[in-house]
Amino acid sequence: MGLPNDCGLALRANWPKGPRDLITDVPGVAVGHATVRAEGVNTGVTAILPHRGDLFREKVPAACCVINGYGKSAGLVQVEELGTIESPIMMTNTLSVGAVLDATVRYMLERGPAIQSVNCVVTECNDSRLNDIRGLHVTEEHVRQALANCGEDFEEGAVGSGAGMACLGLKGGIGSASRVVPLDGQDYTVGAIVMSNFGRAGDLVIGGRRYDTRLAAPEARKDTGSIIMVTATDAPLNERQLKRVARRAMIALGRVGSFCGNGSGDISIAFSTADTRPSDSDRSILTARLLHEDSIDTVFEAAVEAVEEAIVSSLYHAGTTACGDSRFLGLREFLRTYGDRLQ
Amino acid sequence: MGLPNDCGLALRANWPKGPRDLITDVPGVAVGHATVRAEGVNTGVTAILPHRGDLFREKVPAACCVINGYGKSAGLVQVEELGTIESPIMMTNTLSVGAVLDATVRYMLERGPAIQSVNCVVTECNDSRLNDIRGLHVTEEHVRQALANCGEDFEEGAVGSGAGMACLGLKGGIGSASRVVPLDGQDYTVGAIVMSNFGRAGDLVIGGRRYDTRLAAPEARKDTGSIIMVTATDAPLNERQLKRVARRAMIALGRVGSFCGNGSGDISIAFSTADTRPSDSDRSILTARLLHEDSIDTVFEAAVEAVEEAIVSSLYHAGTTACGDSRFLGLREFLRTYGDRLQ
Amino acid sequence: MGLPNDCGLALRANWPKGPRDLITDVPGVAVGHATVRAEGVNTGVTAILPHRGDLFREKVPAACCVINGYGKSAGLVQVEELGTIESPIMMTNTLSVGAVLDATVRYMLERGPAIQSVNCVVTECNDSRLNDIRGLHVTEEHVRQALANCGEDFEEGAVGSGAGMACLGLKGGIGSASRVVPLDGQDYTVGAIVMSNFGRAGDLVIGGRRYDTRLAAPEARKDTGSIIMVTATDAPLNERQLKRVARRAMIALGRVGSFCGNGSGDISIAFSTADTRPSDSDRSILTARLLHEDSIDTVFEAAVEAVEEAIVSSLYHAGTTACGDSRFLGLREFLRTYGDRLQ
Amino acid sequence: MGLPNDCGLALRANWPKGPRDLITDVPGVAVGHATVRAEGVNTGVTAILPHRGDLFREKVPAACCVINGYGKSAGLVQVEELGTIESPIMMTNTLSVGAVLDATVRYMLERGPAIQSVNCVVTECNDSRLNDIRGLHVTEEHVRQALANCGEDFEEGAVGSGAGMACLGLKGGIGSASRVVPLDGQDYTVGAIVMSNFGRAGDLVIGGRRYDTRLAAPEARKDTGSIIMVTATDAPLNERQLKRVARRAMIALGRVGSFCGNGSGDISIAFSTADTRPSDSDRSILTARLLHEDSIDTVFEAAVEAVEEAIVSSLYHAGTTACGDSRFLGLREFLRTYGDRLQ
Repeated sequence: MGLPNDCGLALRANWPKGPRDLITDVPGVAVGHATVRAEGVNTGVTAILPHRGDLFREKVPAACCVINGYGKSAGLVQVEELGTIESPIMMTNTLSVGAVLDATVRYMLERGPAIQSVNCVVTECNDSRLNDIRGLHVTEEHVRQALANCGEDFEEGAVGSGAGMACLGLKGGIGSASRVVPLDGQDYTVGAIVMSNFGRAGDLVIGGRRYDTRLAAPEARKDTGSIIMVTATDAPLNERQLKRVARRAMIALGRVGSFCGNGSGDISIAFSTADTRPSDSDRSILTARLLHEDSIDTVFEAAVEAVEEAIVSSLYHAGTTACGDSRFLGLREFLRTYGDRLQ
Repeated sequence: MGLPNDCGLALRANWPKGPRDLITDVPGVAVGHATVRAEGVNTGVTAILPHRGDLFREKVPAACCVINGYGKSAGLVQVEELGTIESPIMMTNTLSVGAVLDATVRYMLERGPAIQSVNCVVTECNDSRLNDIRGLHVTEEHVRQALANCGEDFEEGAVGSGAGMACLGLKGGIGSASRVVPLDGQDYTVGAIVMSNFGRAGDLVIGGRRYDTRLAAPEARKDTGSIIMVTATDAPLNERQLKRVARRAMIALGRVGSFCGNGSGDISIAFSTADTRPSDSDRSILTARLLHEDSIDTVFEAAVEAVEEAIVSSLYHAGTTACGDSRFLGLREFLRTYGDRLQ
Repeated sequence: MGLPNDCGLALRANWPKGPRDLITDVPGVAVGHATVRAEGVNTGVTAILPHRGDLFREKVPAACCVINGYGKSAGLVQVEELGTIESPIMMTNTLSVGAVLDATVRYMLERGPAIQSVNCVVTECNDSRLNDIRGLHVTEEHVRQALANCGEDFEEGAVGSGAGMACLGLKGGIGSASRVVPLDGQDYTVGAIVMSNFGRAGDLVIGGRRYDTRLAAPEARKDTGSIIMVTATDAPLNERQLKRVARRAMIALGRVGSFCGNGSGDISIAFSTADTRPSDSDRSILTARLLHEDSIDTVFEAAVEAVEEAIVSSLYHAGTTACGDSRFLGLREFLRTYGDRLQ
Repeated sequence: MGLPNDCGLALRANWPKGPRDLITDVPGVAVGHATVRAEGVNTGVTAILPHRGDLFREKVPAACCVINGYGKSAGLVQVEELGTIESPIMMTNTLSVGAVLDATVRYMLERGPAIQSVNCVVTECNDSRLNDIRGLHVTEEHVRQALANCGEDFEEGAVGSGAGMACLGLKGGIGSASRVVPLDGQDYTVGAIVMSNFGRAGDLVIGGRRYDTRLAAPEARKDTGSIIMVTATDAPLNERQLKRVARRAMIALGRVGSFCGNGSGDISIAFSTADTRPSDSDRSILTARLLHEDSIDTVFEAAVEAVEEAIVSSLYHAGTTACGDSRFLGLREFLRTYGDRLQ
């Protein structure tokens, strides 16, 4: 549901929100979570389906931008070379990428009896501040759950792979938002989903206003942790144009207060559901659409807005979470507790 | 002089400014302008010397980041491959890159009688809104002037290559700032200089506050034009680390309101004056220093702050400039005129 | 004319040559030279027109690959970002890039009265072994000549920008070749043109056979100098696919004996004349074709073959050239002189 | 042992081989295999230790070059950003990357009780022509075996991850070689190891001579499959220089007959054991050595030679292997069988 209009936190919005204010406003996109919680354990898996058909046989044009490569995501090399994604996009914790990759490959093999090779995209952030990450608690079962749970409606906040994330001194997690833009007299949607785990206490900016989260997280903290940002659209952009969209996610990071610290693996992925590319074809020559570059600014701006709102929404929906000595306040609890001490 | 402390425009500053609050606080760095003004003509050349010695024989470690490559800068390919800059860094208008490149090569040949090959870095923005850019008014003489004028003190605003630039609905141009950071108990300087020509009227943000510059530039304008951002430091970063610094200039763009529009050639260059690389060496093996990555965040943050302040400073120092039907207000005139109409 | 079939030098050719065995077998492509010769001077300009229409208004999809970036080519940044070329592709010597860039901009401004910004691609190699490169003998007039001379038939060897080039211990210069490949039952052409100036004496390999050119160039020489390789096709590849084509030029370098020495600026550019991109459009959404990736291998292989043959053809057509103490034999004179001393 | 001097297959060698003619001639480097063989199963794991100490605490400077990104390797993003490798470099089959990544993470966690995040490099080729790749036969136990088996002496050919690989119409697999180069009067070693699985039947070239492997593999085959190439050196190159080394592996591919087909994931990694980078440091400023660029050509050439020999050595040592209807001859059996039918 993104950031509620009546939440009192105003972000710039030059473009209208989609009906759900979620990435799933892009027709066909689905999201599902599996949350893993136990004593000392807050972690999980979030799955994003680019469309509801056969992902391997109908690949989506895609691109990625490594904003800061202190990260362990898998599958990006082939996205860059071939300009397509042919799997769900998975999110999990840093040390579980192998387990999630293995499970996602199994999932694809089951659905594609002829598949001998498949590139699965698995992204990660490090939830060790709120999770026994060394315990490797994510299993194949969680991957299957997240995939099975995929739908148009999904929770934001401390769920799925966002269960143990922390961001800018507060509890982070999953956030999503969308924007609608007109092209040639037709409406298209730009949606974003993020797993937020970056930033230093004290740096949070919402709508231009600084929130001193050091009140809640007094320990001086480093900008560490990472963020994964996925942008989807049904507008027909080609892979070069999607890379341009992906790169602009960094602007959203700047708006919410990050300076892209060394330890933050900041990865941005963008895909279009228009003009999917078939795995097999009788013809050598295919046709696809792309935007005239003079019309791409609306998509750029909508993407920046959606990613920015998705980040703030991830904080807004995340409830306060503790693990051992660590405790990160949700944004709403932070505002309730410290709102009167902010200038 | 950067943005004066008493100017009423507050930017975040976690690190102290250097004595001049200019890129020339980095020892050895020098900047000079040649401004070209005539009826319908507002353009020029700005030169940045990485140090005062023989630039070809003592190359500075360097890197560049193409944030948005809708630009015509020359010399970046070799910077990427060899990790060094061996010339002044020149700024001019888009269509004068050839003339300035030719003149800078001549300047280098005069100083290096044995030079058979030299890579000169020439950057550009498009000043056609305030300049008869098709007239190609920049000549070799202006390049020589700018180089001859290089010193530690230099003007900001509508001077040199910044004479005809426009930014975020206001008059843009040259801006600079610096920060001081400690490493191993010693102070190092991070300085920035920008040529600002990007952004859409209405998008300007200073210290989190939106300034509606559409009041002064009522025509709906596209985000077009470009920005060149050069960061210098005397801290010993290697070329990979300098690329990381250069990439973070995009955060500063986000903070001042840009979404990196399609038509904006946003180029960032970073160099270090520590541990220059000799063009000739008796030894095959050289020694250089680099930062432990755990200590690089202070440099990242200082660079973001310096670039952000340099952008705002470029607006602050630029006086209102008109050319034909076009007229862009300086930030100070804008504030005087419209300050009471901003919420 | 490429490498004559009866020249006694056999290269692998899995695909048939086009009628001219030149890049101009790709319909619309034209090439022209201006050669500058005087006492101590062997240099010039070569121009490649991607098509015969308005290059600015009908941009060709394009990509570049910097194989070794010890080079000073201009215009590549925008090709990478926007995926198009909007100017002639110029070749000249290293220190004349500025002059040629300036002249090419002037040429474009004349043809486009509304142009306020244009990205001209200017490539270079260093001909200082056979040319007074510091004399800067290339002028605007030579650029205009080369452009005016553009046609479907053009000379190879020591002409145009190739006048002073040296390669693998022999005289280098301009070479070209083409291949024809079928896609969906229709014939398409892949053509290449190179300016060869790379490689060490003794490393030349033709069709798997080593030719010890140290016999003619006994001085131990470094692998220095550069090569520019331009590939054109009328097959409909998009910009990502053209980048893949451009990257494979490095295979051709390996086949003729190079190891891509440090000092060699090895740049590869590829463009397609199919589905040009309009500078202006009433519609935001365009249509373009691309290859199914399963069919791209024929284009890859044809491109490697064409570039390899173009390199050998540049040596074959270049006549022996001397300048001061330097003298580089043409391949034919080398074979006549030393053929019986090769094992 | 690389390619035996008396094997009758002559490659160019301007630099002498190391004592073992293996990558383990670089002091500290170790290699180990676990081979998985059963009915229909030919696969495995190969591990490369950059040195024998604590890999996480003493990271090696490193770089990678994605020559053709149709591949699923994990861990490359962080290598590019931070310029270091902090794990063993693992090789396996395409669909087992997840399992091997998970197992390698477990191995690192055991050795580093404080590790909360670690980047493991896992590379792959697709052995489905000789292996039931969908059966996912590689397990954690195989990873542990390969790591436990690491030593200075190791087998080449159809072993470890090379068990099921095929290359240029013959049986491929693991190959290795080394070269010794002088720098500042001291000897340094450049070693390479490859997992070869690329190329089309009929394209094999050894020392300039074409071997028509279609005799043994008459079916027309596509250039599909991939190659992983790892180069190690004890010469002090920095990460930018190592990237240059890694890129030159493509030259070796050209020499042995590849044109880098679409379906081949060609990945090159290079690391230096000199001047490792500590994970923790009291000091912010470190010192490292690098080569003067004028001296890097010897390393480039040695790397190309070592990779080329390693590829041919992988074919030479691989025995004929069959699986179902597929059968790939070892190079030695091919030469015995068809040697008299080659022109």
